[in-house]
Amino acid sequence: MELEMKDKLQEECGVFAMYDKDGFDVAQITYAGLFALQHRGQQSAGIAVNKDREITLHKDNGLVQEVFSKDILNNLKGTMAIGHVRYSADGEQSVLNAQPMVSRYIKGQIAVAINGTLTNFKELKQNLEQDGAIFQTTSETETIMHLLARARKNTGRVETALVEVMKQIRGAYALVMMSPQKLIACRDPKGMKPLCLGKIDNSYVLASETCALDTVRAEFIREIEPGEVVVIDKDGLRSIKDNCQDHKKAKMCIFEYLYFARSDSIIENMSVHVARKQTGKILSETYPVDADIVAAVPDSGIDAAIGYAEAAGIPYAKALVINRYVGRTFIQPTQEQRTTAVRLKINVIKETVKDKKIVLVDDSIVRGTTCAKLVSMLKEAGAKEVHMRISAPPFIWPCYFGTDIPSKEHLLACNHTVDEICEMIGADSLGFMPVERLHEIVPNINCGFCDGCFTGKYPYDHE
Amino acid sequence: MELEMKDKLQEECGVFAMYDKDGFDVAQITYAGLFALQHRGQQSAGIAVNKDREITLHKDNGLVQEVFSKDILNNLKGTMAIGHVRYSADGEQSVLNAQPMVSRYIKGQIAVAINGTLTNFKELKQNLEQDGAIFQTTSETETIMHLLARARKNTGRVETALVEVMKQIRGAYALVMMSPQKLIACRDPKGMKPLCLGKIDNSYVLASETCALDTVRAEFIREIEPGEVVVIDKDGLRSIKDNCQDHKKAKMCIFEYLYFARSDSIIENMSVHVARKQTGKILSETYPVDADIVAAVPDSGIDAAIGYAEAAGIPYAKALVINRYVGRTFIQPTQEQRTTAVRLKINVIKETVKDKKIVLVDDSIVRGTTCAKLVSMLKEAGAKEVHMRISAPPFIWPCYFGTDIPSKEHLLACNHTVDEICEMIGADSLGFMPVERLHEIVPNINCGFCDGCFTGKYPYDHE
Amino acid sequence: MELEMKDKLQEECGVFAMYDKDGFDVAQITYAGLFALQHRGQQSAGIAVNKDREITLHKDNGLVQEVFSKDILNNLKGTMAIGHVRYSADGEQSVLNAQPMVSRYIKGQIAVAINGTLTNFKELKQNLEQDGAIFQTTSETETIMHLLARARKNTGRVETALVEVMKQIRGAYALVMMSPQKLIACRDPKGMKPLCLGKIDNSYVLASETCALDTVRAEFIREIEPGEVVVIDKDGLRSIKDNCQDHKKAKMCIFEYLYFARSDSIIENMSVHVARKQTGKILSETYPVDADIVAAVPDSGIDAAIGYAEAAGIPYAKALVINRYVGRTFIQPTQEQRTTAVRLKINVIKETVKDKKIVLVDDSIVRGTTCAKLVSMLKEAGAKEVHMRISAPPFIWPCYFGTDIPSKEHLLACNHTVDEICEMIGADSLGFMPVERLHEIVPNINCGFCDGCFTGKYPYDHE
Amino acid sequence: MELEMKDKLQEECGVFAMYDKDGFDVAQITYAGLFALQHRGQQSAGIAVNKDREITLHKDNGLVQEVFSKDILNNLKGTMAIGHVRYSADGEQSVLNAQPMVSRYIKGQIAVAINGTLTNFKELKQNLEQDGAIFQTTSETETIMHLLARARKNTGRVETALVEVMKQIRGAYALVMMSPQKLIACRDPKGMKPLCLGKIDNSYVLASETCALDTVRAEFIREIEPGEVVVIDKDGLRSIKDNCQDHKKAKMCIFEYLYFARSDSIIENMSVHVARKQTGKILSETYPVDADIVAAVPDSGIDAAIGYAEAAGIPYAKALVINRYVGRTFIQPTQEQRTTAVRLKINVIKETVKDKKIVLVDDSIVRGTTCAKLVSMLKEAGAKEVHMRISAPPFIWPCYFGTDIPSKEHLLACNHTVDEICEMIGADSLGFMPVERLHEIVPNINCGFCDGCFTGKYPYDHE
Repeated sequence: MELEMKDKLQEECGVFAMYDKDGFDVAQITYAGLFALQHRGQQSAGIAVNKDREITLHKDNGLVQEVFSKDILNNLKGTMAIGHVRYSADGEQSVLNAQPMVSRYIKGQIAVAINGTLTNFKELKQNLEQDGAIFQTTSETETIMHLLARARKNTGRVETALVEVMKQIRGAYALVMMSPQKLIACRDPKGMKPLCLGKIDNSYVLASETCALDTVRAEFIREIEPGEVVVIDKDGLRSIKDNCQDHKKAKMCIFEYLYFARSDSIIENMSVHVARKQTGKILSETYPVDADIVAAVPDSGIDAAIGYAEAAGIPYAKALVINRYVGRTFIQPTQEQRTTAVRLKINVIKETVKDKKIVLVDDSIVRGTTCAKLVSMLKEAGAKEVHMRISAPPFIWPCYFGTDIPSKEHLLACNHTVDEICEMIGADSLGFMPVERLHEIVPNINCGFCDGCFTGKYPYDHE
Repeated sequence: MELEMKDKLQEECGVFAMYDKDGFDVAQITYAGLFALQHRGQQSAGIAVNKDREITLHKDNGLVQEVFSKDILNNLKGTMAIGHVRYSADGEQSVLNAQPMVSRYIKGQIAVAINGTLTNFKELKQNLEQDGAIFQTTSETETIMHLLARARKNTGRVETALVEVMKQIRGAYALVMMSPQKLIACRDPKGMKPLCLGKIDNSYVLASETCALDTVRAEFIREIEPGEVVVIDKDGLRSIKDNCQDHKKAKMCIFEYLYFARSDSIIENMSVHVARKQTGKILSETYPVDADIVAAVPDSGIDAAIGYAEAAGIPYAKALVINRYVGRTFIQPTQEQRTTAVRLKINVIKETVKDKKIVLVDDSIVRGTTCAKLVSMLKEAGAKEVHMRISAPPFIWPCYFGTDIPSKEHLLACNHTVDEICEMIGADSLGFMPVERLHEIVPNINCGFCDGCFTGKYPYDHE
Repeated sequence: MELEMKDKLQEECGVFAMYDKDGFDVAQITYAGLFALQHRGQQSAGIAVNKDREITLHKDNGLVQEVFSKDILNNLKGTMAIGHVRYSADGEQSVLNAQPMVSRYIKGQIAVAINGTLTNFKELKQNLEQDGAIFQTTSETETIMHLLARARKNTGRVETALVEVMKQIRGAYALVMMSPQKLIACRDPKGMKPLCLGKIDNSYVLASETCALDTVRAEFIREIEPGEVVVIDKDGLRSIKDNCQDHKKAKMCIFEYLYFARSDSIIENMSVHVARKQTGKILSETYPVDADIVAAVPDSGIDAAIGYAEAAGIPYAKALVINRYVGRTFIQPTQEQRTTAVRLKINVIKETVKDKKIVLVDDSIVRGTTCAKLVSMLKEAGAKEVHMRISAPPFIWPCYFGTDIPSKEHLLACNHTVDEICEMIGADSLGFMPVERLHEIVPNINCGFCDGCFTGKYPYDHE
Repeated sequence: MELEMKDKLQEECGVFAMYDKDGFDVAQITYAGLFALQHRGQQSAGIAVNKDREITLHKDNGLVQEVFSKDILNNLKGTMAIGHVRYSADGEQSVLNAQPMVSRYIKGQIAVAINGTLTNFKELKQNLEQDGAIFQTTSETETIMHLLARARKNTGRVETALVEVMKQIRGAYALVMMSPQKLIACRDPKGMKPLCLGKIDNSYVLASETCALDTVRAEFIREIEPGEVVVIDKDGLRSIKDNCQDHKKAKMCIFEYLYFARSDSIIENMSVHVARKQTGKILSETYPVDADIVAAVPDSGIDAAIGYAEAAGIPYAKALVINRYVGRTFIQPTQEQRTTAVRLKINVIKETVKDKKIVLVDDSIVRGTTCAKLVSMLKEAGAKEVHMRISAPPFIWPCYFGTDIPSKEHLLACNHTVDEICEMIGADSLGFMPVERLHEIVPNINCGFCDGCFTGKYPYDHE
């Protein structure tokens, strides 16, 4: 996933927040939390802190550790913080669109950061423009700040304004924000994006995934409920459930389990790693092979491959080695395709694959080029057979809620049958995770899930 | 290995070279080759190219992809190249010490790059100083260039001078160099450092490890023999074996298999991955446990853990997750040890380890702090037992040939029994690879090996 | 002036704009224009271009030549451009406050850049906040964009909205802006900030000073009139004079002549260099000295010193040499004041001053420390007498229109008589430009001038 | 001079050194000293300090203030320092060639920095190569270090070795060096390059020009004599005059007065500013004009213009304004020559020149393009006549001693008569400083001077 291959899908952001009651360094802890969420967005990072009602912000394009230096962190003092890592689905790379966003309105400063997508974004914006609003970015966060400022005119409290705004916006989101005196968070009423609550001593933290809680040694308390608004201030935490619906009917994005989330996270009571192992088991049941070894495409296929190997009773083996030093400044090869990008990143262990029948597991096929290259490298190294197993079903529908799926003409599965794809990638067989068994990979989940990108059925209407 | 934890040992460098006969872009290919050897040295990188007898050099501190931009590579045109990645054992970080080094002597320019250490370095330098030599760096490469320049006065050819210099120097080394018209390479007579020869069409390449040959799609031809000097020029390749001894008696550094080399490399006819898997098998035979799962410390313990699991018939499982985004600019946590460096880099998958008896495999224990932290994290997450298995024997002797082993007071194994270490790291049992079975992990090796860091017996005398 | 000594006063910005009809590279020309205006603001620089109704912006902290590279300029293609250089009076250094600012409102994008200050800024902002507006910066430009967006709801054209907004805002400003199809510019009704119109072939340019017209080889057409709105689009240029008042009664900031503007500029028909020479003449009449030479503090006192020398018939001499290499990264001396900052920047030519009676001319005394240091250096070098002459009157009142004058406690002239100051700086005599003769330095000016910082009488009320 | 126009000539370096006895921060003072010598070389800068016999070096390409940060300076602790600023005549831009150079030889470390050129460089190098020496740079400094190391074998003291080396080398140079315990300096026996001695309290400093002494507030003691070796150690300063010749017969480079040196420096008892004023006086006598004003090309012609104006009794005026913000990153105009580089840097003050007969003074004409442009700008602005006066004679011979004069085909004066040049630059008349009166500009000089670039007569033979 960290390879930033063009064959990979992208998520839109992670959030972290903290309200300190113990004298912790909130910026330092938010930095560590964002670092744990780096896989959710590598384009920009930002932290806003609140000290005595004044908000200070630092954000920039780059990885968390590129954006923040020791000096910068030391200048971010306060008792509350919100942080954000971002992937931009719309290709808009301007740092103006980085989050958190901070603005001043009638009641002082607010800072807002969102992981999510509004399906009625255009409509909201047009209404605001007709009312004289100006937009300095293309970010949905700015739109939400406009709505908050307007709602605030008629309400006594910022959290009431947020409850009001949630009624106007539609989509999938997890939001954290600071007013001069409060840290506030909410999830969309369908609960499509994850957001959990933790505690360090007497201080609350919020994070997109539990791996960030583990990293900062916070105790996991609970998920924020779908539609819930949580307000944390000097008097403690309280909850507003005006927009809440039945938690059981919420629709967590299934892609969090298959792809986005870190495998050590637990989302809606379900371990991501266990879900992925489960896909391996289901794949081994659905498409059994008389193979010598099961191997993973590193690192994306490892969890499912371990699950496949265990379920099938076939040894798990290391067939492919990844070069960990590939970074964003790596110069792509140009000379007559002699050395391809894939070969620079991944090599075969010949001794593992020579004369072997291999099950090769990955989490997705997007364009198929990487996959084809790997199969051919394995065959070149002497593999007798390569059976490709993919732990997600084929993408054939767009996502309106934040996943940056390529357009149909670039999606292999939209234009080809499984047999055609199998031939194109040169595998001896190919099996995708069956859509109808997706529910089996998340047995303990608290709620339902959205599998719109596989089925075309979505929890919200969209434009 | 890529984590640069202080608990890790360090190698001293990798080399790559190419003599083009097909019109390839030698700098581009050397760049890709060095990138594949990046694990051998992350401190500096350099490439020298030779065009029409004039040598151009670019080198700097940093990773390969940091040191070279597209523009820089495009300016490195030529028909020969040598490249180098460096780890500095002596802590000398000046870019002056980066390699390759280029100098002009009586016969024009020479460029030299070495992976290795001379045990009679001080003596050689003193002799040269008494003869009026000046030293602008602390590098052994500069000393070798001095010796070459002096030897060249009395010999008709540069390769004859090199053969002469090899008689004066003592130590472990793999060297590549360019004269105005020739690409030359050699290994020390004991063959302690690896160097292999490959071919792309009609063009020769040389590399510290075969993984670099794979990356540039070169065909593996053979190892350079211990003591051999190979000369490549417009008339092809020829070999000078004046300094060669019996290849079978050579002493390849065993640490290449246990630690330094990439697991997809083959050194002296022996697969590094297979050698590592073999350590797992031997550990499972020597210290059997009735465990539920076998897990690796990522990524250093993976090969051995797979070998252990397979040999013991216990499922291989993913218990620890590594954060791939840790880089050199990461800000270490300072605040009251709340979040330790280890926790930022590695997290436990609780579902995997809860109520389980675990075999945890790593490749070494240096200071023991990381190891202790990991055991404690596993226990916190509910592991019933943690049995630590280390795929290398304990280091108890210094290395005089380039491995940067901490001084005795920092080496846990020098000051404590295995039982004491086991208690210190909090494991339920601890087993190191038995020294006397090391030969079993390299069954196909062409030669002998040096295990001086475990036994105190070295192939060369030293100061 | 370019020395950024703390003893110096600071202006707030310069603007440049172009509407192309000849196929010129508008970004390149705007870059050259801003470069000529660099003395008006060194904190940030920005250029926005309009291509087919879409606006692209690049801005950053730094000098013009630091902010723009060749690649960046090449990516700024369009047929209109506005540019800005900025000095931040409020100390707010965030790049968010850099100009131009671009936002999207109901009618598409607008870009706005201002040189100036609104005296009713707070009041305007409060009104907007009560109406639900959010502010992402502390810039007056953002406030004006809010007002434009609101005014635009009720008006058919953007220029009509601007005329409307000009009625709401109070202060001194020169503004340039782009709508999707028009380039628009205006000056405040009192005409306190300069803005002139030029032409290159059939293309119009606008600039704060004529030196920018000269630099891009534009022909000077005329000043924008106080209160005038100029609209340039595909149909040519037209003027809206709804807010115009009698040009003769306008109040150009006298400080432009004394201090801010480049001496090769002509403002309101009056050459800045001639005005400065004139101060020298008046000083020589008011405070005659029987001196051997007249010398300038480089470079700020040169024009007036030449005027003094010519009027008094005393030779103009070079007594002080400036080190041109002083830049922003220069490390200030700390060691026991051994070497002061002044001495690093300026040295005395002993042969010029030894045994001489010297008239030393500068344009201002703010804190007096530099001045005292220079007098002492001259005396040390053997000067018999040093008679200080200052081409501006003493500052004793605040400026509400953009000049960043230190607060009263730091203004020497607020707390001391001329005699006291003379003693403090160690001069043999001291003469300031008499306030009552200021009108004599601008004989050809088209209008009146504001000398509020010397007299406390301002053209507008202020908060 | 600071404009780095291609029309400008270049010097080769400046040196500074300090031996501390008072507890000063030697790096800080050397930094200030080099900053004062920045005009002698803008390509690279370096400082080496000696603390307890160990030398630490920092050098890099760039201006003094770019190369050194506060942190870097703070890490350069010691009781001796030598520093260097460099212009590279040979176009070799590698930082390896930056100075000072540090090397280790039989007696420990030495650091050497030179301003100068050896005319027997090739021959010296060939001899060394035949003796087995290797060269890592193309710098003459490295060659001198080789010679010192060899001479040191047979001599008891480093200064004796230096005296010996001076007998082997031929050319123009000022050298500063540090051995483990001594600071040593020397000038070539003909005294072609300047080097002076100063004192701060009990600590000695050495500098290429007295302006650096002034900047660090050192008292000027004396010039180092031609051929003299000065040794400073814990016992104080002593002098070795074995290579000294008659000081009166020394041949200081006349170009230091005309061009290179800062006008506030005094070289061999002669003020640079006074020498330059003198050229103006001579020009006014030789080529009198009935002009209205005398103006300078800023900044290079100012001293001579003031001299001309004073001698001719014509008012000195400011006709041209320079844009001080031009730096190395400035993007040159490309678009159809609309805006030329000269116009971006210099503008005319129309009010000064309109309908005036002007004498325009500069220090040299190299290619003539800038000059032609300025004359045309003055005429465009309404100048009636422009009479060009050049304070140096025409260059028609090469310099073998360090001045980077373009080859003959680029030197206007080599290929054209004065009348032709006058026509080419469009002036109404043109007068160069007469060679035969050069001696008049340095009436107080201690010695003779070299005017080889004007006469072809040189003090040393050359290759």
